[in-house]
Amino acid sequence: MNHTERLTRYVTQFVDELVQSGVTDVVISPGSRSTPLAMTFTQHKGIKQWINLDERSAGFFALGMAKEQNRVVALVCTSGTAAANYYPAIVEAYYSRVPLLVLTADRPHELRDVGAPQAIDQIHMFQPFIKWFHEMALPEGTEEMQRYVRSKASRAVHVAQDGNRAAVHLNFPFRSPLVPDFDLPNVWERTLSEGFHSNVNGRRRLDAHELITLHERLQHKERPLFVVGPQTDEALRYELIQLAEQFGVPLLADPLSQVRSGVVEEEVIIETYDAILKSEWAREHYRPDVVVRFGAMPVSKPFMLMLNEYEDIEQWIVEAHEGHREPTSRPANFVYSDPVLFCMDYREAFPQFSFNRSWLETWQRLNKEAKSILLSDKEENSLTEGHVISTLLDELNQDETVYIGNSMAVRDLDTFFMTTDKRIRVLANRGANGIDGMVSSAFGAASHGAEVTLVLGDLSFYHDLNGMLVGKQYGLPLRIIVVNNNGGGIFSFLPQAEQSTDFEELFGTPFELDFEKTVSMYGGRFFRTQSLEVLRAQLATAPKGLEVIEVVTNREINAQWHRTKWREIEETIREGAET
Amino acid sequence: MNHTERLTRYVTQFVDELVQSGVTDVVISPGSRSTPLAMTFTQHKGIKQWINLDERSAGFFALGMAKEQNRVVALVCTSGTAAANYYPAIVEAYYSRVPLLVLTADRPHELRDVGAPQAIDQIHMFQPFIKWFHEMALPEGTEEMQRYVRSKASRAVHVAQDGNRAAVHLNFPFRSPLVPDFDLPNVWERTLSEGFHSNVNGRRRLDAHELITLHERLQHKERPLFVVGPQTDEALRYELIQLAEQFGVPLLADPLSQVRSGVVEEEVIIETYDAILKSEWAREHYRPDVVVRFGAMPVSKPFMLMLNEYEDIEQWIVEAHEGHREPTSRPANFVYSDPVLFCMDYREAFPQFSFNRSWLETWQRLNKEAKSILLSDKEENSLTEGHVISTLLDELNQDETVYIGNSMAVRDLDTFFMTTDKRIRVLANRGANGIDGMVSSAFGAASHGAEVTLVLGDLSFYHDLNGMLVGKQYGLPLRIIVVNNNGGGIFSFLPQAEQSTDFEELFGTPFELDFEKTVSMYGGRFFRTQSLEVLRAQLATAPKGLEVIEVVTNREINAQWHRTKWREIEETIREGAET
Repeated sequence: MNHTERLTRYVTQFVDELVQSGVTDVVISPGSRSTPLAMTFTQHKGIKQWINLDERSAGFFALGMAKEQNRVVALVCTSGTAAANYYPAIVEAYYSRVPLLVLTADRPHELRDVGAPQAIDQIHMFQPFIKWFHEMALPEGTEEMQRYVRSKASRAVHVAQDGNRAAVHLNFPFRSPLVPDFDLPNVWERTLSEGFHSNVNGRRRLDAHELITLHERLQHKERPLFVVGPQTDEALRYELIQLAEQFGVPLLADPLSQVRSGVVEEEVIIETYDAILKSEWAREHYRPDVVVRFGAMPVSKPFMLMLNEYEDIEQWIVEAHEGHREPTSRPANFVYSDPVLFCMDYREAFPQFSFNRSWLETWQRLNKEAKSILLSDKEENSLTEGHVISTLLDELNQDETVYIGNSMAVRDLDTFFMTTDKRIRVLANRGANGIDGMVSSAFGAASHGAEVTLVLGDLSFYHDLNGMLVGKQYGLPLRIIVVNNNGGGIFSFLPQAEQSTDFEELFGTPFELDFEKTVSMYGGRFFRTQSLEVLRAQLATAPKGLEVIEVVTNREINAQWHRTKWREIEETIREGAET
Repeated sequence: MNHTERLTRYVTQFVDELVQSGVTDVVISPGSRSTPLAMTFTQHKGIKQWINLDERSAGFFALGMAKEQNRVVALVCTSGTAAANYYPAIVEAYYSRVPLLVLTADRPHELRDVGAPQAIDQIHMFQPFIKWFHEMALPEGTEEMQRYVRSKASRAVHVAQDGNRAAVHLNFPFRSPLVPDFDLPNVWERTLSEGFHSNVNGRRRLDAHELITLHERLQHKERPLFVVGPQTDEALRYELIQLAEQFGVPLLADPLSQVRSGVVEEEVIIETYDAILKSEWAREHYRPDVVVRFGAMPVSKPFMLMLNEYEDIEQWIVEAHEGHREPTSRPANFVYSDPVLFCMDYREAFPQFSFNRSWLETWQRLNKEAKSILLSDKEENSLTEGHVISTLLDELNQDETVYIGNSMAVRDLDTFFMTTDKRIRVLANRGANGIDGMVSSAFGAASHGAEVTLVLGDLSFYHDLNGMLVGKQYGLPLRIIVVNNNGGGIFSFLPQAEQSTDFEELFGTPFELDFEKTVSMYGGRFFRTQSLEVLRAQLATAPKGLEVIEVVTNREINAQWHRTKWREIEETIREGAET
């Protein structure tokens, strides 16, 4: 068997097994060394291939796609710094538990560490942010090595998706010549009709005895809160609401919990807790005696602050798999169980049980008051960043998706995303909370037909302008709302803002970019407005391709507006408490 | 001592010691956690601060600056994926031996690995591409810890620049509040008038006995070649030419060796060896019996091919420090000595010695013939990629700098950069040969007044469009020549090109971007031309700010033109050999 046949059979078996194992999409950044993988993916009928030239964007594009599609997406790049550009997306995937399959081409061993061009040390180069690394053998054509390569493909897909998801990295040494020969007989031949490995995946759950023990510790609590942070499981949304309803517990729902939308019975859902708990007084008076928490830590800083301030708040944290998302350093009880099964089992085990409902009613009153203040000037034709969010949510249709940027955007969403019976999916990159890769992530989420609106700040938009290219190349529709306060607005809320020297240069980062030009280069339509009316009109029609709406706001006015609202909420709930 | 005082004294001592140790520039990407470092750098009078919003661009900006200035440049970013964006530049710095000082802010230990926002595992996150990592202690104000922090600052600067240069990474855990208080008494106080550590740096050199032994092995060679690859030491240029002149040895000089320009006596310099050795016949007939090589491996693939083809070529490789840049897997003799001292010592040890000069004359003839063919249609008003390079070189003034892109651009430079008495500095990112970060690298090189022209392909330009922002912010002049063949032209030369299926999508990567729009967003002037005349006129005046000249070429015609030239050269030199 000659070199080309060995190469061809090795790579075709690998790619075929990925497809057999359920991989449907691969994102390729062109290069030379990766030719065998790239050409083989192109030849295989069972996989959709996306070209994305900037590997940093490619990484986030795959991340957004994997997140929205809820399955592993493969990435292919050539050797050298190309691979290093994946790093930010791989880090984000690790912390936000998104499955990726990173396939890097490499020089063969004899060209490593000897000054050969475009050869860097790719072994474990993404540690510790991946679940599994394997240095693939050089292509061989023996039956044994065809089994080896199928086994590795199958296993890589499984590992990326099992337990806490993350990226898996396989590194492929390839020798020249790099072009496979697909005319060889039976290059796609399968030895098994099903995938190489088959997996039956059990889920962790508590037994009856464990549930009783847990309930004994919880049942006499007087001020329980259920808290659900960022998570994407639709089933959990339903079960959590059922459990909270039946037990009579306020359910503090993060904007990324998927719980604020698609709800018919919304009484238990408290969506304004971030605004309420901004008040020190409220944190003292309405603090829980126990918190049962699901998903990642909520976006809300005041909530976190409350946990830090009061050591008498007992914490229960439900995690599906090994994990330790508990940033307060307070004692905590971890429940390692599939959260959906946990809710179902707990509710069914104690069908008659309820906590004291007056505590729930108190939170319902607080929530109603805060909500009414936050929405009171909604119809004014002035545009604060909060108005942008609430207008968007009003105009979105059932089943649309919001991809929300970090920094200010996600905080505004937290404040203004009120419960709705419309199903609205909310995605974000809350693993490492970076402002990078947002445009690419949103295009990834939009790649399979979802109607996506990305909301982000100008700094974050700038960071991933390159991400617009993939939209142009594939004609993907995406609406982007850029909240342009000409720099990093979130810093206006920090103590640094008061140190006026150097503030503007270091933290305000004004940069005066006319994004219209770049948007137009990528074939997008661009609108700029400072009017609520115009924004609403613009949101009324679905975008056909890329559409960028820049909303110009004022950092100072915005910060002031928020402070006024928070003060008003505190005053109102204190009055309410006194009467 | 309270928290703010501890923080302030710790960070001011650190920053002051960096300045004492010779750090003159810091590139800051704004963020919150990095506030103590960012504000302290801003306060210190002894250091120039650059704001660069995209950390990937910031990394390359610092790289270009460090390369051009020949000294360490510091980088500051916040925690999370911000740091991960430095990865490509850090990898490039490692392989091209550029000193960087990477300062990442981090969450304190109690907020790590517990699901806290923007906290990722930053310990050793750039391994194995850095020279030294140190996790800094939490800020403390004791005298001992002020000595500690000064010692680490001083050492970091030294390590980055000593031996084979690379990045050093210091990770700083900071607790809130993050704002230092510069009104405290004596925050900048120095315990020592000089830097904390002082270093006397010796250089490796051979002793008389070692030189004699070496000479015994070389002196009877009949076909010796000196080869100098990418390197930036001006002194080496001079000494190498002296040595080659005296010993009568052809000096094959890479376009990045700094040897092709600023030369008065140019007879020994062979600049067309890449074109000559493209001929299999020439490789056979004009192969050396010994190669003495300096710097990194040359860009030329035919040269590398020749080393691989003929095992009777003895190799001597001169390295200043530990290193092993020998990609052929052939036996090699390493000379670990400062290359400048090696040339001086060798020449002075054997002042009467010369190799057989007819071998030098043969190479001089080949070089003359190849040169005349390559330049024969120089005056035609058609624009191949080669014409772009030779026109640029004609128009450049003394002491200007060319930053050359990877892929096709550097190969064209290799072919068309003929010796000149003008001093022209040539920089490139040849560590990992990535196409990323080029715009930022070139702005970094232009940051201290050098007149820089960046030449790169459209794909590479696209990859770092974000890099233009720093130019706008600081009004840095830079000329960029984008050779736009609408996609990855280098692939037209690869075997993959013959597989027409999928070629255009996978390797041609046409993307039809009208760069004028984005250039204009960044405040640059833009010109597009297909005419040599217009290009020449454009190059006649120095750019005031950012100026982008897009030269539209045709991939097919260009590849064809090169092939014709190579054939013509082979025919001519074969005829010359027969007569």
